Amino acid sequence: MTDVFTLGEAVGIITAERIRHDMDVRLDIGGPELTTAVGLARLGHSVTWLGRVGADELGARIVTVLRGEGIDTTHIQTDPGASTGLAMRQRRIGRAGHVVHYRGGSAGSRLGPGDIPARAVQSAKILHVTGITPALSGTAWSAAHHAVKLARDSGLAVSVDVNYRPQLWIDRQEAVEALNELATGADVLFANQEELQLIEPTIGTIRELVVTRGSKGASSTVNGMRYDAQAAPVTAVDPAGAGGAFVAGYLSGVLEELHPTDRLRRGCALAAFTIASQSNWQGLPTRTELPPLTF
Amino acid sequence: MTDVFTLGEAVGIITAERIRHDMDVRLDIGGPELTTAVGLARLGHSVTWLGRVGADELGARIVTVLRGEGIDTTHIQTDPGASTGLAMRQRRIGRAGHVVHYRGGSAGSRLGPGDIPARAVQSAKILHVTGITPALSGTAWSAAHHAVKLARDSGLAVSVDVNYRPQLWIDRQEAVEALNELATGADVLFANQEELQLIEPTIGTIRELVVTRGSKGASSTVNGMRYDAQAAPVTAVDPAGAGGAFVAGYLSGVLEELHPTDRLRRGCALAAFTIASQSNWQGLPTRTELPPLTF
Amino acid sequence: MTDVFTLGEAVGIITAERIRHDMDVRLDIGGPELTTAVGLARLGHSVTWLGRVGADELGARIVTVLRGEGIDTTHIQTDPGASTGLAMRQRRIGRAGHVVHYRGGSAGSRLGPGDIPARAVQSAKILHVTGITPALSGTAWSAAHHAVKLARDSGLAVSVDVNYRPQLWIDRQEAVEALNELATGADVLFANQEELQLIEPTIGTIRELVVTRGSKGASSTVNGMRYDAQAAPVTAVDPAGAGGAFVAGYLSGVLEELHPTDRLRRGCALAAFTIASQSNWQGLPTRTELPPLTF
Amino acid sequence: MTDVFTLGEAVGIITAERIRHDMDVRLDIGGPELTTAVGLARLGHSVTWLGRVGADELGARIVTVLRGEGIDTTHIQTDPGASTGLAMRQRRIGRAGHVVHYRGGSAGSRLGPGDIPARAVQSAKILHVTGITPALSGTAWSAAHHAVKLARDSGLAVSVDVNYRPQLWIDRQEAVEALNELATGADVLFANQEELQLIEPTIGTIRELVVTRGSKGASSTVNGMRYDAQAAPVTAVDPAGAGGAFVAGYLSGVLEELHPTDRLRRGCALAAFTIASQSNWQGLPTRTELPPLTF
Amino acid sequence: MTDVFTLGEAVGIITAERIRHDMDVRLDIGGPELTTAVGLARLGHSVTWLGRVGADELGARIVTVLRGEGIDTTHIQTDPGASTGLAMRQRRIGRAGHVVHYRGGSAGSRLGPGDIPARAVQSAKILHVTGITPALSGTAWSAAHHAVKLARDSGLAVSVDVNYRPQLWIDRQEAVEALNELATGADVLFANQEELQLIEPTIGTIRELVVTRGSKGASSTVNGMRYDAQAAPVTAVDPAGAGGAFVAGYLSGVLEELHPTDRLRRGCALAAFTIASQSNWQGLPTRTELPPLTF
Amino acid sequence: MTDVFTLGEAVGIITAERIRHDMDVRLDIGGPELTTAVGLARLGHSVTWLGRVGADELGARIVTVLRGEGIDTTHIQTDPGASTGLAMRQRRIGRAGHVVHYRGGSAGSRLGPGDIPARAVQSAKILHVTGITPALSGTAWSAAHHAVKLARDSGLAVSVDVNYRPQLWIDRQEAVEALNELATGADVLFANQEELQLIEPTIGTIRELVVTRGSKGASSTVNGMRYDAQAAPVTAVDPAGAGGAFVAGYLSGVLEELHPTDRLRRGCALAAFTIASQSNWQGLPTRTELPPLTF
Ligand SMILES: Nc1ncnc2c1ncn2[C@@H]1O[C@H](COP(=O)(O)OP(=O)(O)O)[C@@H](O)[C@H]1O
Ligand SMILES: Nc1ncnc2c1ncn2[C@@H]1O[C@H](COP(=O)(O)OP(=O)(O)O)[C@@H](O)[C@H]1O
Ligand SMILES: Nc1ncnc2c1ncn2[C@@H]1O[C@H](COP(=O)(O)OP(=O)(O)O)[C@@H](O)[C@H]1O
Ligand SMILES: Nc1ncnc2c1ncn2[C@@H]1O[C@H](COP(=O)(O)OP(=O)(O)O)[C@@H](O)[C@H]1O
Ligand SMILES: Nc1ncnc2c1ncn2[C@@H]1O[C@H](COP(=O)(O)OP(=O)(O)O)[C@@H](O)[C@H]1O
Ligand SMILES: Nc1ncnc2c1ncn2[C@@H]1O[C@H](COP(=O)(O)OP(=O)(O)O)[C@@H](O)[C@H]1O
Repeated sequence: MTDVFTLGEAVGIITAERIRHDMDVRLDIGGPELTTAVGLARLGHSVTWLGRVGADELGARIVTVLRGEGIDTTHIQTDPGASTGLAMRQRRIGRAGHVVHYRGGSAGSRLGPGDIPARAVQSAKILHVTGITPALSGTAWSAAHHAVKLARDSGLAVSVDVNYRPQLWIDRQEAVEALNELATGADVLFANQEELQLIEPTIGTIRELVVTRGSKGASSTVNGMRYDAQAAPVTAVDPAGAGGAFVAGYLSGVLEELHPTDRLRRGCALAAFTIASQSNWQGLPTRTELPPLTF
Repeated sequence: MTDVFTLGEAVGIITAERIRHDMDVRLDIGGPELTTAVGLARLGHSVTWLGRVGADELGARIVTVLRGEGIDTTHIQTDPGASTGLAMRQRRIGRAGHVVHYRGGSAGSRLGPGDIPARAVQSAKILHVTGITPALSGTAWSAAHHAVKLARDSGLAVSVDVNYRPQLWIDRQEAVEALNELATGADVLFANQEELQLIEPTIGTIRELVVTRGSKGASSTVNGMRYDAQAAPVTAVDPAGAGGAFVAGYLSGVLEELHPTDRLRRGCALAAFTIASQSNWQGLPTRTELPPLTF
Repeated sequence: MTDVFTLGEAVGIITAERIRHDMDVRLDIGGPELTTAVGLARLGHSVTWLGRVGADELGARIVTVLRGEGIDTTHIQTDPGASTGLAMRQRRIGRAGHVVHYRGGSAGSRLGPGDIPARAVQSAKILHVTGITPALSGTAWSAAHHAVKLARDSGLAVSVDVNYRPQLWIDRQEAVEALNELATGADVLFANQEELQLIEPTIGTIRELVVTRGSKGASSTVNGMRYDAQAAPVTAVDPAGAGGAFVAGYLSGVLEELHPTDRLRRGCALAAFTIASQSNWQGLPTRTELPPLTF
Repeated sequence: MTDVFTLGEAVGIITAERIRHDMDVRLDIGGPELTTAVGLARLGHSVTWLGRVGADELGARIVTVLRGEGIDTTHIQTDPGASTGLAMRQRRIGRAGHVVHYRGGSAGSRLGPGDIPARAVQSAKILHVTGITPALSGTAWSAAHHAVKLARDSGLAVSVDVNYRPQLWIDRQEAVEALNELATGADVLFANQEELQLIEPTIGTIRELVVTRGSKGASSTVNGMRYDAQAAPVTAVDPAGAGGAFVAGYLSGVLEELHPTDRLRRGCALAAFTIASQSNWQGLPTRTELPPLTF
Repeated sequence: MTDVFTLGEAVGIITAERIRHDMDVRLDIGGPELTTAVGLARLGHSVTWLGRVGADELGARIVTVLRGEGIDTTHIQTDPGASTGLAMRQRRIGRAGHVVHYRGGSAGSRLGPGDIPARAVQSAKILHVTGITPALSGTAWSAAHHAVKLARDSGLAVSVDVNYRPQLWIDRQEAVEALNELATGADVLFANQEELQLIEPTIGTIRELVVTRGSKGASSTVNGMRYDAQAAPVTAVDPAGAGGAFVAGYLSGVLEELHPTDRLRRGCALAAFTIASQSNWQGLPTRTELPPLTF
Repeated sequence: MTDVFTLGEAVGIITAERIRHDMDVRLDIGGPELTTAVGLARLGHSVTWLGRVGADELGARIVTVLRGEGIDTTHIQTDPGASTGLAMRQRRIGRAGHVVHYRGGSAGSRLGPGDIPARAVQSAKILHVTGITPALSGTAWSAAHHAVKLARDSGLAVSVDVNYRPQLWIDRQEAVEALNELATGADVLFANQEELQLIEPTIGTIRELVVTRGSKGASSTVNGMRYDAQAAPVTAVDPAGAGGAFVAGYLSGVLEELHPTDRLRRGCALAAFTIASQSNWQGLPTRTELPPLTF
């Protein structure tokens, strides 16, 4: 029995200020589903994370971190035939970011439907997937859809974060089709403002639609009613990870059947902790750190 | 006119003590031909380095470093279709090192015969290649052989460093064939002790054979005469780069027509500077730092 | 002869972003009376700091720092029977801070009335104590009161900073009684906004009451007249130490008989320097750095 | 079912070069039983670690690390009434080390016999305790002895590491008595050269006595036969943790019924990995890093 | 043929938070003409930088950096008789900065008219000088004026940045005379708000006058018409270098004959990149990072 | 009353591995007389240090450090007309070090006979000077000789460390004359092996001649008898400061009238602590850290 079952790829992340000059850089691991899993686990929910990692040190780090957080890692596959993926990023002002992905053919992208443990999925309350997984490879695409189908057939809630990453798709059209196909199965759908138009075809069909608006907070439409929450006041250290953290907070609210506004508030609170930290996931709060204590 | 023309792949290098725990790691660039090029340039020789880099920040770093050292970078190709390669290494005791290469399909591996500027090669005094290049891809294999052929046809000296990296070859047999084929063309051939047996078939045909023996120094057989030099006494900080630095010192001695023993000594001196530094190339000496000043 | 005599506990301070993850943390020493002492000394006032330290390296660090700043350390006791205290803090967003005190039974908490050098106190112009000292232990409570009594009997001005730290008291009631008892003896009393209601019983009796309001600045009531000053515009690096720094600036104004508004302004200026620095005390300004130069 | 059950105290560890000057220091966690547990788990053995931690961030770190390594942490008690202990150390040349313990009354020292899960102990193959636990408090003393009694009564092997820490005992006599009492119950007893004379009264009765000799390696007397192994050649970065790592390697050899000499060799190998690392436990090898690969 | 020829002094720069406490400080090189040169080169313009450096490691660093950026360094003189200059700075709040210059008699200050390569100057499109050069020494004063004369005689555009540094002049009167003399020759003149009154006598005669206003942006008067641009929204990491970066962006706009408002905008964009970086020059953007991408 | 009076120049010291590449460097202060003063003070001797510092942050650091160590700093002059000197060093293998001095015209070099407080000198037991002071300037030369004359006239012991720094002298001949002139006044004379021949003319006249031999230890000739001591076994981190530390240990032995061999041993012990530390002075031991504890 697990509250939330999630699957995806976790990769090593190198972060520099200026790749062409820096000699000291930061090494971490990340992935939006990993962030969501850690966020939920720190609040006391039981979580399973599924993915493939390489038989290398980065793979060991991913498993060690997840297990350390009390997340069920027993379904993770260690793939002897591929390396754990890696992303190299540079923080620049405005929109001039720079990420190079070293994840083509990565262990994580080799996830397939056969890796999905049907029982484990079926015994969860929520299945959470993101739009990154179908972009990784054909088998990963199938794995995501297979999991969603399993979930729907068993009647558990399906949560989807659109997470559109242009670099991972051949073209926008391919992404639009795949992401709408995925979104169609969602009970709860998360999108940021840019992603909204991408999933326009599907939006109308979603029971619980959550839109994040960066420093302007987040809003939702639940059964046709609109709810809003402000972002928490915080000095941004590194905004990466905000989306996955928000989802963790929101789903925690779903699991505890909080009022829709309080689901948004918890999402914003978790995002704020991540934004104030260099890491995607290390800054996530424990339950005792949650508001009202926090702000 | 250039003293030495060299070609190969340069990659980003991440170095950690323990990948599964470290949050602060070192980012540098490297490649044995890059080390050799920098070593020669710092001693005042004119050098051309050829290779392909990605249209990304790591690629910019490679070009910037080489150009900064006064090396001719005008023939470098920036490949918009592939990323600059990356290696992630971990320093452990004894033989338990750990390197993961993210260079499959890298820009550097897409080097091909068409990239070789015939005039530039022909106007050099020495062409230097390593056994890594033929392992990168079929086109890289052709590029190396094309360059050697150009050199031989024009009568310039060919220098080959065996540089056997098991991970880059399908099996040992494939490597043995390819490396001997490359070695056959050499006027000066460099091998460490493990590589000696690999190139046994070719050894007899080489005019100037140089064998490095780690902390025990190096020796050569030149026209049938044997010469020896001791390694310089130095506390090893990071031994990576020693081979490429040694080659730089040795070829500098060849260019200046030093006595064979002094060629070895200069090779050992440059290797020592690199071993005493965290970087493969930053520790390389200027001419005023050379012995007799040094030891 | 000394301008200001102050007493209290100084401890080692470990600061991390996230104790459960960080491998590199900051080690400093601190204590509000230490901050106040350094602040005054850097402006050219003569200061004596009294306290007990352990016969360990942290104790040596405290004495070395204070002596280095030109503060009279001749009355400090080195206690062979107890360690110097330590606090481990974590900076989190909002109110979710986290401090663990390792100071139960610390050398500093063993301060007693017998440690107070009557002559040294009596020859000062101002005695400054904080509400932390009576919370440390029974003997420390007595020491603080003994010093205040000595001061009042000799006619020197008594300055008290309320400095209510809930963790150091059994319950709020105990604190209210003890802090009001201490406050009663004050000529100048410092409180932040939260502490105001705590000392309500005493407020009416204080000649010079100073209230700090964080980023909103500070105000005072001196002989029934109200004065105000704005906080200096500054990007907060670590707000810890602001209170002690403010007191240093204000008391410097008292010693120089500045206009009440200028006392507040100097307090705000010193606080700003501390807030802009990672350390509680290292950022404190010299006299040449004071406004009008500063802002 | 677990291969090894161990219990003890884990604490936060601050390491500086010079406490009186350093601003940047290292924060880690440690304890010889934690090192032993991690060492065994990385080699694939199943391990349970028992101890009490505070309801603070250091406590969370200890649980997270152990759980991350795959160690059974389900019996750990989080004590809301006490802080996790802390040690502050300084590395100096020769014997002039300096450690200040902040662990009087720590959560870890409040371990008691009631915390020992009888079933879990009884289902293990080996119980491992150190001479530190009985020094922590009366209840900890009882807990260690209770565990040993449980183990002996159930017929599992008892492993004891003498681990004499003078600072934790009132006087040497007290330690001699307590440590011999503990040692008496041992099937395997570990001592370094200084500790040998301390346990002289008991030595004769021990089936498998292992003596470590720092850089000179280790030897054992098993059923009256003497065995020896050399230390691995390694540049020491921080020797702390060598003892606990050695025990892990040795007990791994016991579990796999290796020849006595190979037990010593594996102990020396694990110690070498720890000595080459700044951390007590992070440098410990995986099974694939073990000799013959290593040296 | 070069687009812009610039000359000046580059020095080593040590940056600390608090010189009296910090053990770890930053070492970089800088000088406003170096920043301008790098800024222009990164946008694809051809640039020549002229100056003298010492025959020391800092001098080598200056040449290596400039050459690495693709700037023509062939006219740089390495002066065996003097050291490369050095500046030690401390970042403090408000106006309380602190810089100590170690550049009296530096290699850079020994620049003289004889160092100016007439042909190279004459073949450029723009000559750029700052008001720092005439302040360095009598020969440097002559060098700047000689270059301006050469430029005017050959009809190339002259760009002057006032750059008034009080510490480098005997008194304000001396500076006023020298700076107006230099400004008189300018086609494009850059001044910040404080410098405006200094060059009042000359202002009327300037065709293209550009005034920077810190976070309020910049404005220009071109042939009597006034233009304005806002500063880019950016969190300042270290504002040093903003002026030189602005000039690079503006001159890039001049070279590309952009509309006056777009010249200002490009100036503001480059300044923003530098302000967001710890370095004066490392943060400067490539052409692909320029707006509209950026903001 | 002071045990040892010493005078000289203290400067800021920047230490890098490779000045042309490093962005993070170390800032410390140093000078052999400062090291000697700190070494003596930490062993409990009373010490006075005299010198001039600039009215800048480096000057403040020097005074703060010395005063913090309990050294009498009341005679230090703060010179408003000159900056505190600075040295920039790079650690390279073998003899290929690199130091650039920024101390021409420094505050420290402006020391003159008028700065020498006659009473303070005369009330000491030992005056200690080094051969660096006469090399700094004519006035510094006079100051050193004036101090020696005062000491001799008052019958206190004069200690001289030859400390020949070629860069600070016009030529060797000038140094030979000046250093022998200084050495003539010595009761105790310190020289390393290279300096021995420089002071040959004077050697015969010295009562207590001490020769240091790097890792081979030190020896002395006292009243014609020869004594020897081995260097302490230590892994060198940064050998700088060894000489000044040795002198501190030796003079401590003189003050305590230890046997000549024990004077050497204490010198070697203090040198070892400094060699094991990155700093010239921070690693110096307290009395409790002295042998027999240490080795
Ligand atoms: N600058 C910010 N300050 C405070 N909260 C923020 C900020 N940026 C993002 N957030 C929080 O993170 C959530 C997700 O951020 P957003 O940028 O919308 O998503 P994504 O990262 O997935 O594109 C927001 O709803 C908000 O709560
Ligand atoms: N520990 C060491 N100490 C000093 N010099 C060394 C050391 N290791 C290598 N070298 C130098 O580097 C050269 C090349 O090293 P080697 O290990 O033989 O080559 P490779 O790195 O190519 O395998 C040696 O000939 C020697 O001069
Ligand atoms: N964010 C801030 N910006 C500027 N000044 C501040 C800020 N926070 C505190 N200060 C200054 O520090 C003083 C004391 O701060 P406050 O938070 O009131 O006290 P305490 O730290 O003792 O609770 C204030 O009066 C103000 O001058
Ligand atoms: N300098 C060293 N080099 C290599 N191995 C060492 C070194 N010091 C200790 N070891 C290894 O660690 C083991 C335990 O070290 P020892 O110092 O005897 O124990 P303890 O740390 O418990 O006192 C030794 O048996 C040896 O294998
Ligand atoms: N705080 C800031 N935020 C954004 N841009 C800034 C800021 N400060 C300076 N700039 C930019 O840098 C340019 C030059 O800054 P300014 O301070 O006027 O020049 P200088 O550094 O030469 O005195 C400004 O025109 C503006 O574009
Ligand atoms: N490598 C070393 N190991 C141990 N001690 C050393 C070492 N180098 C120097 N010392 C100690 O420092 C003392 C002074 O060193 P030396 O090099 O002779 O002087 P200087 O630094 O003044 O030239 C020596 O006598 C010895 O005690």
